[in-house]
Amino acid sequence: MDIQLNCPVPLRHDTIQMAHGGGGRMMRELLESVLLPAFRSEALDTRHDAAVLALEGSRLAFTTDTYVVRPRFFPGGDIGELAVYGTVNDLAMAGARPLYLSVGMVLEEGYPIEELRRVAASMKAAADRCGVSIVTGDTKVVDRGKGDGLYINTAGIGAVPAGLSVGPRHVRPGDAVLVSGDVGRHGVAVMSVREGIAFTTPVESDCGPLHGLVGALLGGGVVPSCLRDATRGGLAAVLNEIATDAAVGVEVHEADIPVIAGVEGACELLGLDPYYVACEGRMVAFVPGDAAERALAVLHATPGGEGASRIGTVTEKGPGTVILRTRLGTRRILDLLSGEQLPRIC
Amino acid sequence: MDIQLNCPVPLRHDTIQMAHGGGGRMMRELLESVLLPAFRSEALDTRHDAAVLALEGSRLAFTTDTYVVRPRFFPGGDIGELAVYGTVNDLAMAGARPLYLSVGMVLEEGYPIEELRRVAASMKAAADRCGVSIVTGDTKVVDRGKGDGLYINTAGIGAVPAGLSVGPRHVRPGDAVLVSGDVGRHGVAVMSVREGIAFTTPVESDCGPLHGLVGALLGGGVVPSCLRDATRGGLAAVLNEIATDAAVGVEVHEADIPVIAGVEGACELLGLDPYYVACEGRMVAFVPGDAAERALAVLHATPGGEGASRIGTVTEKGPGTVILRTRLGTRRILDLLSGEQLPRIC
Repeated sequence: MDIQLNCPVPLRHDTIQMAHGGGGRMMRELLESVLLPAFRSEALDTRHDAAVLALEGSRLAFTTDTYVVRPRFFPGGDIGELAVYGTVNDLAMAGARPLYLSVGMVLEEGYPIEELRRVAASMKAAADRCGVSIVTGDTKVVDRGKGDGLYINTAGIGAVPAGLSVGPRHVRPGDAVLVSGDVGRHGVAVMSVREGIAFTTPVESDCGPLHGLVGALLGGGVVPSCLRDATRGGLAAVLNEIATDAAVGVEVHEADIPVIAGVEGACELLGLDPYYVACEGRMVAFVPGDAAERALAVLHATPGGEGASRIGTVTEKGPGTVILRTRLGTRRILDLLSGEQLPRIC
Repeated sequence: MDIQLNCPVPLRHDTIQMAHGGGGRMMRELLESVLLPAFRSEALDTRHDAAVLALEGSRLAFTTDTYVVRPRFFPGGDIGELAVYGTVNDLAMAGARPLYLSVGMVLEEGYPIEELRRVAASMKAAADRCGVSIVTGDTKVVDRGKGDGLYINTAGIGAVPAGLSVGPRHVRPGDAVLVSGDVGRHGVAVMSVREGIAFTTPVESDCGPLHGLVGALLGGGVVPSCLRDATRGGLAAVLNEIATDAAVGVEVHEADIPVIAGVEGACELLGLDPYYVACEGRMVAFVPGDAAERALAVLHATPGGEGASRIGTVTEKGPGTVILRTRLGTRRILDLLSGEQLPRIC
């Protein structure tokens, strides 16, 4: 479950709009007013990327995501890698060690089998890199014009260390807000292909696994309050979700949020705000203030975390609100967008 | 994983055909030559509906299925119920007690939200009936013309009783072959709507849960060798899969296979063979020959199993072959079809 928020909100549409899938306010409305009330369960109420469940004395994390990214191949990755890393990352965000994946494919009549081979090989390589096994699967075929080549669902199971609990309800004023690297790459990489734009500095997706960073933090004695990967809706969506769910304020500093020049340039060209552009290999970590230094040191020393940065602090002011301090010293609210900037980004 | 077979077979097509999703020989080819070699894992090799996995001392079953049935509402059920019962049944076929479900939805732009509410309510009611919780989920939206209203993936987790192992490799010559009720209803119910055919006796889908029957068998001291629900490809596909995977012969008797008059009539009209038509609430149970009487008694006394019947026996003759003894006393091979009779049946 990617977005989870508290207050029920009315739906303004009778039919599904593209923006209902975009990670913004309209997606929240759909979940809050239709799906969460219908499915109501204790685990869904915890509002996290993965459910943490009891199974005969063990604790397991369980999550699912469907991948509909367009195009299926983009600089730095493809739909297969995304489907493995995305679900591995949702498990990692619950503090879990990822173990097992299921794969459900919807194939459109006419889809090239050679491409299916490439995607499957890519999934296997990604799974091997994460130390997870693909253990069960399903394929369905739909008529030409009723799909878009290939949609992939993955569900994942991980083991949660005894006693560990990570989630919005543990976030406290004074917590430091870290990101594990520069933001906005995935969205820009996808858009560059989709819009046929060649940048002088090509931007590659950050598509990759985060469980190593989480393992390093836990191994280094840092117990994060909350972890979340910044996918649909980007950094801004994650900060808003946590601010709302934890009923805290979040203040971040523009000057401390890493954005590479290629992403910045592309965003200017495309009229996008990089804070709202999806990442696929970046997490936001909320850690107790006195553990911030150690957490940063651990991340910097771990592959994939070299570019980690402390970007802000959790406050008591304005629960549910994210404030951005600009380079000019002004303050502005970093709000949740209504719809999406980028459809079908993952 | 719905179909799993041993011998690698060459693919005769460069692109996906509707028949690659039909539960027949072409689906087997796609899995055998593309997906299983790519994903290769120990659990996939066990070739069963659900993977049975270790998690810190417990044993869990894990399975996934995507549901693309057309139409989404049919006599006796809808896509939401199907998505819950189908996955619950795959867990039950591993001998597991179903516990948790994930839900991943692909929504097409323009899909009516009122219908989404109906489907979600239907899923919740089905989950409650099975005693399982929907604990995590995801929604994606695709552009108009790139979906077909709604596709639903469910993955499921269940607990496998200590020491229990159910699967093709336990099947032995002498085992009795039982079905839990009459076959072919689901496919006929769906086709009646799709083809706009009104039958004098309307046929309702058998869409329903099987975990109660499995629980009753185990509780009654019957340890099945193998259990499988007869979905895509119908009874014939299940018998062929098990005969191949277990390297045994199977002989069944036409006179003992329950088919209701409505299904028989509809199949004649539509040119279908009821043994190849999907069920969604029927299982085939292979049980040791000396437990057959008790198993039947237990099934008959359990809701959903009133129509159970012993339909045949496992033999040593012709490993991989299913023989049907007709009412006329003749023998014919009940083969796996090449493609599918009925596309998008689940």
